[in-house]
Amino acid sequence: MTSSSSQQKLKVGLLGATGTVGQRIILQLADHPQFELAALGASSSSAGKPYLEAVQGRWKQIRRVPDNVAQLPVYECKPEYFASAVVSPVWIQVQRTVEDAFRRAELRVFSNAKNYRTDPLCPLVVPLVNPEHMEILPFQRQQVGTKKGFIVTNANCSTTGIVVPLKALEAKFGPLEKILVNTMQAISGAGYPGVSSLDILDNVVPFISGEEEKIEWETAKILGGIKTDKTAFDYHEEHPLKVSAHCNRVPVIDGHMECVSVSFKNRPAPSVDEVKKCLQGFTTEAQTIGVHSAPKQAITVHEEQDRPQPRLDRDWQNGAGVNVGRVRECPVFDIKFVVLSNNVMIGAATSWFMNAEIALAKGYLS
Amino acid sequence: MTSSSSQQKLKVGLLGATGTVGQRIILQLADHPQFELAALGASSSSAGKPYLEAVQGRWKQIRRVPDNVAQLPVYECKPEYFASAVVSPVWIQVQRTVEDAFRRAELRVFSNAKNYRTDPLCPLVVPLVNPEHMEILPFQRQQVGTKKGFIVTNANCSTTGIVVPLKALEAKFGPLEKILVNTMQAISGAGYPGVSSLDILDNVVPFISGEEEKIEWETAKILGGIKTDKTAFDYHEEHPLKVSAHCNRVPVIDGHMECVSVSFKNRPAPSVDEVKKCLQGFTTEAQTIGVHSAPKQAITVHEEQDRPQPRLDRDWQNGAGVNVGRVRECPVFDIKFVVLSNNVMIGAATSWFMNAEIALAKGYLS
Amino acid sequence: MTSSSSQQKLKVGLLGATGTVGQRIILQLADHPQFELAALGASSSSAGKPYLEAVQGRWKQIRRVPDNVAQLPVYECKPEYFASAVVSPVWIQVQRTVEDAFRRAELRVFSNAKNYRTDPLCPLVVPLVNPEHMEILPFQRQQVGTKKGFIVTNANCSTTGIVVPLKALEAKFGPLEKILVNTMQAISGAGYPGVSSLDILDNVVPFISGEEEKIEWETAKILGGIKTDKTAFDYHEEHPLKVSAHCNRVPVIDGHMECVSVSFKNRPAPSVDEVKKCLQGFTTEAQTIGVHSAPKQAITVHEEQDRPQPRLDRDWQNGAGVNVGRVRECPVFDIKFVVLSNNVMIGAATSWFMNAEIALAKGYLS
Amino acid sequence: MTSSSSQQKLKVGLLGATGTVGQRIILQLADHPQFELAALGASSSSAGKPYLEAVQGRWKQIRRVPDNVAQLPVYECKPEYFASAVVSPVWIQVQRTVEDAFRRAELRVFSNAKNYRTDPLCPLVVPLVNPEHMEILPFQRQQVGTKKGFIVTNANCSTTGIVVPLKALEAKFGPLEKILVNTMQAISGAGYPGVSSLDILDNVVPFISGEEEKIEWETAKILGGIKTDKTAFDYHEEHPLKVSAHCNRVPVIDGHMECVSVSFKNRPAPSVDEVKKCLQGFTTEAQTIGVHSAPKQAITVHEEQDRPQPRLDRDWQNGAGVNVGRVRECPVFDIKFVVLSNNVMIGAATSWFMNAEIALAKGYLS
Repeated sequence: MTSSSSQQKLKVGLLGATGTVGQRIILQLADHPQFELAALGASSSSAGKPYLEAVQGRWKQIRRVPDNVAQLPVYECKPEYFASAVVSPVWIQVQRTVEDAFRRAELRVFSNAKNYRTDPLCPLVVPLVNPEHMEILPFQRQQVGTKKGFIVTNANCSTTGIVVPLKALEAKFGPLEKILVNTMQAISGAGYPGVSSLDILDNVVPFISGEEEKIEWETAKILGGIKTDKTAFDYHEEHPLKVSAHCNRVPVIDGHMECVSVSFKNRPAPSVDEVKKCLQGFTTEAQTIGVHSAPKQAITVHEEQDRPQPRLDRDWQNGAGVNVGRVRECPVFDIKFVVLSNNVMIGAATSWFMNAEIALAKGYLS
Repeated sequence: MTSSSSQQKLKVGLLGATGTVGQRIILQLADHPQFELAALGASSSSAGKPYLEAVQGRWKQIRRVPDNVAQLPVYECKPEYFASAVVSPVWIQVQRTVEDAFRRAELRVFSNAKNYRTDPLCPLVVPLVNPEHMEILPFQRQQVGTKKGFIVTNANCSTTGIVVPLKALEAKFGPLEKILVNTMQAISGAGYPGVSSLDILDNVVPFISGEEEKIEWETAKILGGIKTDKTAFDYHEEHPLKVSAHCNRVPVIDGHMECVSVSFKNRPAPSVDEVKKCLQGFTTEAQTIGVHSAPKQAITVHEEQDRPQPRLDRDWQNGAGVNVGRVRECPVFDIKFVVLSNNVMIGAATSWFMNAEIALAKGYLS
Repeated sequence: MTSSSSQQKLKVGLLGATGTVGQRIILQLADHPQFELAALGASSSSAGKPYLEAVQGRWKQIRRVPDNVAQLPVYECKPEYFASAVVSPVWIQVQRTVEDAFRRAELRVFSNAKNYRTDPLCPLVVPLVNPEHMEILPFQRQQVGTKKGFIVTNANCSTTGIVVPLKALEAKFGPLEKILVNTMQAISGAGYPGVSSLDILDNVVPFISGEEEKIEWETAKILGGIKTDKTAFDYHEEHPLKVSAHCNRVPVIDGHMECVSVSFKNRPAPSVDEVKKCLQGFTTEAQTIGVHSAPKQAITVHEEQDRPQPRLDRDWQNGAGVNVGRVRECPVFDIKFVVLSNNVMIGAATSWFMNAEIALAKGYLS
Repeated sequence: MTSSSSQQKLKVGLLGATGTVGQRIILQLADHPQFELAALGASSSSAGKPYLEAVQGRWKQIRRVPDNVAQLPVYECKPEYFASAVVSPVWIQVQRTVEDAFRRAELRVFSNAKNYRTDPLCPLVVPLVNPEHMEILPFQRQQVGTKKGFIVTNANCSTTGIVVPLKALEAKFGPLEKILVNTMQAISGAGYPGVSSLDILDNVVPFISGEEEKIEWETAKILGGIKTDKTAFDYHEEHPLKVSAHCNRVPVIDGHMECVSVSFKNRPAPSVDEVKKCLQGFTTEAQTIGVHSAPKQAITVHEEQDRPQPRLDRDWQNGAGVNVGRVRECPVFDIKFVVLSNNVMIGAATSWFMNAEIALAKGYLS
């Protein structure tokens, strides 16, 4: 399935390897033409065990643990065990100091953890939206004193879903002014064991710790772009964005639904048809440079009045794109619509792959 | 269980008796001090059968069909079968012509159907909000040419939940200007069999036919009050309301959750603490005149960050009140919060009872 | 609500007070005519806090924490803190040594933990089945060297449901020979947080640790009765029972469903009608001596072909009785039927109350 | 994707094309090397519409309707519209007279409907179990008076799951004597809209109309084989099977779980290890002759104590095989285990494909 020989592949050292997203990464690495798994890291309770044993009772994928991974040792998350790797994805619950240690050990860290998202030197990259954030990496290296090592972060999964259509709209119709978003988020977003079944069966929980704040400020950093001297981000400063989020957990396994109302700065605001056409036609750099994990269609606009839906649409394009539906006028804002994104794929694993693939294509991994 | 003797009770003729809400009405009538069941109506396929047989396979209550109801005959929904009744609740799927025929037959119709909600002569009453709408009834009778007969309607269940706190806020802080509401609605709102399990298990459906429009205009009629000459409603004309709704169906059995953001016309807007105090202290006419089905507390404000929740809070006060939680500042509007209401109780059956009880207390049923 | 004055009530010291069943006990104690709460115990992480704080985020009941309980201190599970109590219910995760320490401190321990169920001196009592097991208590005290202190245990919740109809059948038709039971158990049986939502939404887990073994041997001890000299149990020795259980977890909140096939020793086996009549007419000692928490009907036999169902029938009689349905011939055994019992109520809290009430009525608490 | 050219493919006329299983057939036909869609049939309410319109609001697949199918006309289920087809799959709700009419029109009917399953001339074929039933087809044609036309039927989905391991056991260890099976069946087995969400959310329904009877007698026909003169089936006559089924509906989307206890006629019964080895090594004719839709592994035996599970294992091998787990001794029978099968795939669509592929390979379609 892979055309390039194993010697040419970039070695990946995976921290958080026993978690839900780590499992997806392992499966996708098995078929990846450019990357291969070199070393596995997890919490100290797993360290020292073969992967199959460490992940026992926690492997929740249809595909089995790949044979060549099952017996790989799991290491503690210390750079010395990952010296052979050149790229290191980091998942969720890793401490800030660990990420920094890996960077200082000259590893290229692509992180799904929240530690460095607010860091003024660290790109917060949704690959279908703002890969240009990586242009700060030379300055990050200079400031930190590394030759190769850097940290790039993913966005929060609920932010990732909405910024793709928001970026499409800004690119076409100019800056947004106000955004109100209401999320209905899948349980897999909380990891495993995560949400107790007693809390979510026949229920909705109208609170996810820290989530609303993340959406409210991440959106501004991601949509804001990078300053021209490539030493700082813009944070949508010239046209400040007001973002308000209501976050809810619902009894859905995978797939975050988000209801969005937006106002544009420029008048007149675009029509419903213009918005649909803009979203459906949105093309991203990840697609034009042809990275391996990019979806064919960045945004799929549904015309059926009751779509998208998590169960039916989350696996379209293997979860790499974003689904939008019910585009219509908003009596209070300009336009409203719903967004569905696969929180485990484009919301985490697929974004990691695309970020690393883009970095490779742009020469940041050499 | 009831202190007043049966002769003194008002006779109720129940249309739509085999439906989910009709079943709740029947159970509550069994214990009601002022009303008693006189006649049952349902679709022609049920007509002619004893109630127990007509409702077979559809009775979904923990309590059994009351013994004195089980063998009552089910009639077609024609006024002649209901001549002994003085009050007629009407549920959901009854045709406009049927409701009018009952009114013309001098029955007092309290309807849960949507037919007459937009009628300029018909009160659209949420009992904890706008019982004063009933003051139009003398004019309605005059225009229609009845002596006793009239039609009063309930609001849609998703409207009912939010207008209670919205009314409290307007009563204290003056007119609202903008409201954005996102609903996560229970499956019981669609009746039985209603929502297919294949559509809602592990899923969210971001569309409920007609629901958003209902919330958007019902809110204005309900909050708008009645004009001073008692011949028309105000529709919030002086201070027009902008309302935008996103409606979703979620896998919850009972209890509509709604995330609400609001802006006030008057500046400065009230603080979070002022809003909480206002909501918690909200007292309604239904409570002060002491009608039987009124909740002790109209609005319960939760302080826990993850409450209210449908499964835990929908049955508080037997579902007769409204739950509010997460009152906080909104970065785009002034204030945001969540509302939980029991769509089957305060959203339907309990509102019917309170409306009829209020009408009785105010002399409209004599 | 309670007629006897507080001074006359027996003081209860509750271990495991923050758990799901402990919460139900607290609510039921608030209305109990004979018992009152004296002291609360929980794990050392909760000890020292007021109850409201200790249970924060874990209180999952519709009714609020009773005012007079909210500020009660939570103690470690050591006898010295419970000296004022005369009865001590113990929940689930208490160590064997703790239970013994309480007994030796002359407390009467009614335990829901599994530690002493197999003990040859300890009654394993399902109150609607074998209260006569308590007749061993004088001998237990003698052997252990206590004056008042003893340990009585509840059965496992999945055992409790089936032994009620099985006892009714043995009482009428003589010994059973073979029993095959397949359980579909609610998530609340695993406590809180218990089952991860990722494990049970849209899923069935065909395994519950230790559960099949418990059903298989508890059934024999419970149905076996006590030997005539009151120093040992019979374990169905004369007519050995073969019991086989398949245990499954299903996405149901409360209520264990169990499909049962049975063979009788005596031929001919009873007919379907005889079995139904026997079950429906089953009357237990708890009912005849009139203890407070006994259900009016021990077993409710459903005639509808698709009942009982957890959601509709688990709260019938406040969950104190057992529901049986679909009684029919079994092509392999003699008779098959389904059983539904509320695992939190008759399966735990209500059985605790009835056991203590029976003990009180029979003089074991004086 | 398909190597053979379109001209060489066998034309399929699909009845019941708008149903859940029909949708799966359409998707699988799009990639099939030997069959291609020729004509679509559905109820008269759909007839005359293009497929995309007829299936609107009912298409519940991740993949879209194939472009070349979207505009195909939907016909009434009359043979004249299907003259070009040579094979006709028939789904669920087709009347017996329709199936016979298609047969008499010389079409080869592979039916998922129950009408002809009990017919003494019609093979009831689970492709991984008893393809030899098709050897009666020459006699069926002779009796009915057709040259080519015949009817072959699938088994019920809950029967299909268990007969695969039961066949493996009989092939190795001789006849079974007693089987007790308890099913926990997915909602997709009831079609769309099928099960009301109000009936199944937070619930189990212990009844599926006709299902227990189907399992009890289909098992005997399928395992019984065909008599040597190829004019009748054996129905396990020499070694009569006793089968008892308890059937339940659970809130699972796809995948029937079944708990099975079995006794063997021959003593000593095989050990747990022998049973596991036998199941894991079971090879079927569909595999040895290499038909397109056959799974690589007929039965996957799980060693983890809590597997198989519907959500995790139903899509293994695209649902074409059967999963067995928890093989252990039964205290009442000899051996017990659980079976998971994908009711939509091996339980319906995949069995249809395999039956037609086997018929093609064996020359019954020429």
